[in-house]
Amino acid sequence: MTPEAVDRALVREIVTRALAEDVGTGDVTTAATVPAGTRATARVRQKAPGVIFGLAAAREVFRQTDPAARFQPLVEEGVWRPDGPVLEVCGDAAALLVAERTALNLLGHLSGVATLTARYVQAVHDTGATILDTRKTTPGLRALEKAAVLAGGGANHRSGLFDAVLIKENHAAMAGGVGAAVTAARAHTPSLLIEAEVRDGAEIEEALAAGAPRLLLDNMSVDELRAAVAQVGGRAQTEASGGVTLDTVGEIARTGVQFISVGALTHSAPALDLSLLLTLEKDAPP
Amino acid sequence: MTPEAVDRALVREIVTRALAEDVGTGDVTTAATVPAGTRATARVRQKAPGVIFGLAAAREVFRQTDPAARFQPLVEEGVWRPDGPVLEVCGDAAALLVAERTALNLLGHLSGVATLTARYVQAVHDTGATILDTRKTTPGLRALEKAAVLAGGGANHRSGLFDAVLIKENHAAMAGGVGAAVTAARAHTPSLLIEAEVRDGAEIEEALAAGAPRLLLDNMSVDELRAAVAQVGGRAQTEASGGVTLDTVGEIARTGVQFISVGALTHSAPALDLSLLLTLEKDAPP
Amino acid sequence: MTPEAVDRALVREIVTRALAEDVGTGDVTTAATVPAGTRATARVRQKAPGVIFGLAAAREVFRQTDPAARFQPLVEEGVWRPDGPVLEVCGDAAALLVAERTALNLLGHLSGVATLTARYVQAVHDTGATILDTRKTTPGLRALEKAAVLAGGGANHRSGLFDAVLIKENHAAMAGGVGAAVTAARAHTPSLLIEAEVRDGAEIEEALAAGAPRLLLDNMSVDELRAAVAQVGGRAQTEASGGVTLDTVGEIARTGVQFISVGALTHSAPALDLSLLLTLEKDAPP
Amino acid sequence: MTPEAVDRALVREIVTRALAEDVGTGDVTTAATVPAGTRATARVRQKAPGVIFGLAAAREVFRQTDPAARFQPLVEEGVWRPDGPVLEVCGDAAALLVAERTALNLLGHLSGVATLTARYVQAVHDTGATILDTRKTTPGLRALEKAAVLAGGGANHRSGLFDAVLIKENHAAMAGGVGAAVTAARAHTPSLLIEAEVRDGAEIEEALAAGAPRLLLDNMSVDELRAAVAQVGGRAQTEASGGVTLDTVGEIARTGVQFISVGALTHSAPALDLSLLLTLEKDAPP
Amino acid sequence: MTPEAVDRALVREIVTRALAEDVGTGDVTTAATVPAGTRATARVRQKAPGVIFGLAAAREVFRQTDPAARFQPLVEEGVWRPDGPVLEVCGDAAALLVAERTALNLLGHLSGVATLTARYVQAVHDTGATILDTRKTTPGLRALEKAAVLAGGGANHRSGLFDAVLIKENHAAMAGGVGAAVTAARAHTPSLLIEAEVRDGAEIEEALAAGAPRLLLDNMSVDELRAAVAQVGGRAQTEASGGVTLDTVGEIARTGVQFISVGALTHSAPALDLSLLLTLEKDAPP
Amino acid sequence: MTPEAVDRALVREIVTRALAEDVGTGDVTTAATVPAGTRATARVRQKAPGVIFGLAAAREVFRQTDPAARFQPLVEEGVWRPDGPVLEVCGDAAALLVAERTALNLLGHLSGVATLTARYVQAVHDTGATILDTRKTTPGLRALEKAAVLAGGGANHRSGLFDAVLIKENHAAMAGGVGAAVTAARAHTPSLLIEAEVRDGAEIEEALAAGAPRLLLDNMSVDELRAAVAQVGGRAQTEASGGVTLDTVGEIARTGVQFISVGALTHSAPALDLSLLLTLEKDAPP
Repeated sequence: MTPEAVDRALVREIVTRALAEDVGTGDVTTAATVPAGTRATARVRQKAPGVIFGLAAAREVFRQTDPAARFQPLVEEGVWRPDGPVLEVCGDAAALLVAERTALNLLGHLSGVATLTARYVQAVHDTGATILDTRKTTPGLRALEKAAVLAGGGANHRSGLFDAVLIKENHAAMAGGVGAAVTAARAHTPSLLIEAEVRDGAEIEEALAAGAPRLLLDNMSVDELRAAVAQVGGRAQTEASGGVTLDTVGEIARTGVQFISVGALTHSAPALDLSLLLTLEKDAPP
Repeated sequence: MTPEAVDRALVREIVTRALAEDVGTGDVTTAATVPAGTRATARVRQKAPGVIFGLAAAREVFRQTDPAARFQPLVEEGVWRPDGPVLEVCGDAAALLVAERTALNLLGHLSGVATLTARYVQAVHDTGATILDTRKTTPGLRALEKAAVLAGGGANHRSGLFDAVLIKENHAAMAGGVGAAVTAARAHTPSLLIEAEVRDGAEIEEALAAGAPRLLLDNMSVDELRAAVAQVGGRAQTEASGGVTLDTVGEIARTGVQFISVGALTHSAPALDLSLLLTLEKDAPP
Repeated sequence: MTPEAVDRALVREIVTRALAEDVGTGDVTTAATVPAGTRATARVRQKAPGVIFGLAAAREVFRQTDPAARFQPLVEEGVWRPDGPVLEVCGDAAALLVAERTALNLLGHLSGVATLTARYVQAVHDTGATILDTRKTTPGLRALEKAAVLAGGGANHRSGLFDAVLIKENHAAMAGGVGAAVTAARAHTPSLLIEAEVRDGAEIEEALAAGAPRLLLDNMSVDELRAAVAQVGGRAQTEASGGVTLDTVGEIARTGVQFISVGALTHSAPALDLSLLLTLEKDAPP
Repeated sequence: MTPEAVDRALVREIVTRALAEDVGTGDVTTAATVPAGTRATARVRQKAPGVIFGLAAAREVFRQTDPAARFQPLVEEGVWRPDGPVLEVCGDAAALLVAERTALNLLGHLSGVATLTARYVQAVHDTGATILDTRKTTPGLRALEKAAVLAGGGANHRSGLFDAVLIKENHAAMAGGVGAAVTAARAHTPSLLIEAEVRDGAEIEEALAAGAPRLLLDNMSVDELRAAVAQVGGRAQTEASGGVTLDTVGEIARTGVQFISVGALTHSAPALDLSLLLTLEKDAPP
Repeated sequence: MTPEAVDRALVREIVTRALAEDVGTGDVTTAATVPAGTRATARVRQKAPGVIFGLAAAREVFRQTDPAARFQPLVEEGVWRPDGPVLEVCGDAAALLVAERTALNLLGHLSGVATLTARYVQAVHDTGATILDTRKTTPGLRALEKAAVLAGGGANHRSGLFDAVLIKENHAAMAGGVGAAVTAARAHTPSLLIEAEVRDGAEIEEALAAGAPRLLLDNMSVDELRAAVAQVGGRAQTEASGGVTLDTVGEIARTGVQFISVGALTHSAPALDLSLLLTLEKDAPP
Repeated sequence: MTPEAVDRALVREIVTRALAEDVGTGDVTTAATVPAGTRATARVRQKAPGVIFGLAAAREVFRQTDPAARFQPLVEEGVWRPDGPVLEVCGDAAALLVAERTALNLLGHLSGVATLTARYVQAVHDTGATILDTRKTTPGLRALEKAAVLAGGGANHRSGLFDAVLIKENHAAMAGGVGAAVTAARAHTPSLLIEAEVRDGAEIEEALAAGAPRLLLDNMSVDELRAAVAQVGGRAQTEASGGVTLDTVGEIARTGVQFISVGALTHSAPALDLSLLLTLEKDAPP
């Protein structure tokens, strides 16, 4: 519940890179027009319905351009609302102008992911299904996007290739069948989750016999899903994936699968609409 | 016309970071199931209409996981088509499996940006307007996204705060008016483009008098745009921004503005749908 | 089974850092004494009984100092033997001298970890217990050390704080008991292993009731371990830790625990004794 | 005497890397179980006899996970003692849990090096010999390990290939003999120490004649060492190396050599046994 | 006018690298001779006529070696003067000694660039010409050197290959003539300055017809320059380059060119002579 | 004599940084004007008398922009000559244009350092004095500049604060006199050169008595230097520094000092004048 402390170095690095990309050798407009010592207050506002996430990243942007800036969050992350104030930050006017776009880019993108997740979660709220993310994330931003999924009410699937076993068709083929693959994986990684993709009833039994604690039902029709869930009968967890949209997710959830993984959460979420307003302070100190 | 050579180090770094994020300490599934020495061919296919971009990034992903892999592009970047083969790569099967998701994530996202750009360009194709990107890009991916915009038929606005002057309302206020801001900027950066946001006829004249070569018309209605373009009368370039969608961009273009900048190109483009199929080779060399 | 491809970037980075540390601004001895163009062959030999691991790292060291060097492994990693040849590399003599110490440091340390692991594995070979490593690794070398543990016949516990839940006394206290902690963790991370430390029979039942798939029995006596294993009765996996030495590990294994985790594998393994012999080639090309 | 200020950037980098390795995308256990705002005090204790070193590194670990944590050292580095308190740190409970293992890994390893060094120094305390480290260090940790050797009462040999000349058999062979090698080195690097390995009386004279200020006596028996020291007769410094153990080092020192270099100090020091106890604060501020 | 905030990360990185290069594993002299806790004041003085620039870099050096040091600038950057105090900093004596050389190297070099620029600016002060820098900068220091040029009264040409188009002879040849090259560039980069090198009257007309806003007159004699400026007649900006020295720059300026670019500003500026005096404080706290 | 292999990683990093600085997001001029697949040959020529150094750095620049480029050195580094060809490289035309400025900047600067060093060495060629560099180097380029000094016939003083002890006035004051400082340093760093600044005859005796192997005579007049050298009488090495110019260095050398250190070699060397000519190949392959 205090993820912020944990990811600090990562956020710092992402922000440094994003600022480098935008600021490069310096903000020529600000250098030409803003008198040294000018102070201002920036207010960010949410302009469309959704869920805010990414305040720690935004705060870091302002901190890197003006270590002495005062940052005030004005919203609770992870809560759906129609619009409203997001944050307020007072500091050196030039630094705020330099930070503006990078802060909004991060906040808008992460809030977009949280918002789309919340829409999927809402669509299955009357079922027992959990919405999971995937590895279909934006290169360089996976950890932040996965945190945004949590903020939107979803849960995280594995972080990468290293922290869970997911046996797909190709792996099963090379290992000599899905059962053999599960057995090999259990010997190799006794401390990680093992999930196996199954395509029909025979594979379901083979994977269960080998001890797979979760089965992936990929690109199945709603009828196929329902049948597979029935066959598993609680002997393992079940996860649906493939062809999931806001229109279909409810029906899929009602087949009884426990998990539904959705690539769109992270690869196709539109940015949430935000604005930043700058107010100059009257009496700028030197 | 040979952008590939130019951005090599950047692509390398982005790919290294993306692989690190996904692979971490190793692909446990592959390690448990794929026999050493297995060789395979991966084929990527475009499954929805659009424009492919990002082959250099995809090639680099496969190169980093298997330096000896043979990579064959099967599509011309920047050309709209309904679907079709994208690339083929032969190499170590474990390495291909490790590369798969990172390659698809990059290719899908960049092709998504190119595709959305192409839609906007198509929507104004019977006008003289040029579609521009903005600084509303994904943190860490700006250069690649801007190249994707080019591939989609758009043109690039400034890369960041450093390579063009864009005087907005706040800058003008701090410099003592838009005219004073333009004059200050011309003295400070004689070798960069200077663009000034103008809100009404008086500011248009003030900016022109100070020698601004381009005017930004932000969040104006179509009627206001038309009037502003008429007033400028060719004395400077004009650029519209704000509230631009696929529905409105045609009408905006017909006001006679030369440039239309669209944040959505890079901050809200859905990924293009791609698939990867793996074929194992029969006789795996040791 | 092809971990090498997977960890390539990591090995490269570790080697670059190690070389930077040792070579700094250049090998002054070699610069003063070795004629340009001199070629040589280096042969590394194992001088004490144990298990070799780290050839990929050693190869990378030689590759970074002489990309054209020819590297020949002369031993199978992961196999116990009394002594024997390890590798042979031909190349620029100056480059070999620069690489020597860094290559031996990596190879000696990793082989030391593999060797100590093999001793523990041998000590429990007639039981069903699996030897696990811990997070007590050398800063900066965790992934390589965990690979060395695999080479020595052990298995890996979690890679870090991110890829499995391990609820210790403090976590349980803060979550309101071990059962509440397990329940919270299952909701938060449905795709990761959840292990809970239990101190007595009541906690065992509480953790099992909450659905913990593995229990950690820390610092228990052999009698306590035996009783705990009996109580669990196969309802979850069991893992012993604390106070494990080569003298005690056999007795611990015979209590019936499935896993025994041993910090010493990585924090106190002495380096394996290796030597490098350099032979100059007679006719040095220019 | 204020080495801390000097190595700050290096310590920061090593700690960042070690935390990244352990924390990755976040501590899932803590995130699931520790309420936000919980505060605690961590106390580290030395549980076995030895010398503590590495407080600056430990402090940096806690600083990176909680910049506001209060850190209190409770021991003087470099002093032998049976056991006792090491440090105390108050801060955010989640941050302390995240920091715990990384701090202990660094502190345990560096204190292990200092402790083993102190044992060697004690073994020669009644002779004039100085115990030196070597380049047989853990990749990535050389500077810290060399500081730990100082803390244990040893002295540092060269940092790497760049800051002293050490002419071994191979260099001498390539330069046309040890005398020629010393002469070449003196011309090439007039501002660095030059040491030459000598194998017999003739080479001793040759090296001395060429002006070598220190001679390396590698893998000699105690009798050979004694004879060599007598022959040198104070015309240069002498250093013994090879086959040095806690059992043999006293005898070696009594041959009259000035320096004894010991690889085991850094490549085979077992970690010093430390524990960390966490106490929660009753009234956690928000 | 507040460039300092903008370049913070860059300055930090340059200083970190410079300190790493100089300090390495630690200042052995200071470690051996300066008692812990000693405090001192360092005063930097300008000893030769010129313009000071680089205080932000110097401040960062002292900050990195002693975060608590108090730094006091004693000079206005960008102003010519014969000599005088530059800055004063109080802090840990060991840290000041570690920082001294790196701070002076940066300050001396950047002030050297500012000073040489000021000499060129002075030499054309009675003309309308602006002195520009070039891309002939010191690798790794371009942004700082370009800021020093501004401080010396010059203006900046493009930062690199990315932020302006400069069509030289080779580009024109490959594009099918200077006119075709200008046309291609205008289509490709509508938001960047386009400058074209022209060698004679025909090329001037060709470039102007294609819409080039600036012409480069490279290596022309004063008479050729005068004729070219006359022919252009205000239809575009003009820039002279090649063979510009302090002796010739005045004459070149009087041909009427608007810009004169001078590589020597950054590739051949001698360092400005500075000294640092250290005063120990009497009562050193522990 | 094979410094190239040794510094490879460093050269690579310096070149990567320099290219990043110049190329940024891409060479817009080349992208707009050079047809893909165009091939060319670049020839670099020395246009003023001096010593070439930096071919390894130049080669790395071309390698990074076109890994397949063929690079041919046409000059021996370290040899004085009036002018002549330097190198030739064939490859992708766009890549050569991207590399041109960075390669020339490195080569011009390093050759400038080698050339100025050669002038100083020539000025003392009829004495026994050795010209040394100092730590007054360009931030980020020290190792390359020190190699350039070697190429110019000079020798290197210490690389930084870490690889030799240089006791200056302040250190002596804090340690209780120059003799006490030398004694402390000998105990602290037995494997590094120890040099002490001495200001008069009493300090000379004090430093010699404490065993300093080299004395620094800073800012002494020629008469004072001669007297100091006489007093030392071969009991230690002597080094002059301060106020050394090409006009005074000969006279200083004839006082009998063994070493003369000259800051200007690295902080004030003008770049050597070089040009690059590009020839397009007729038949460009696709």
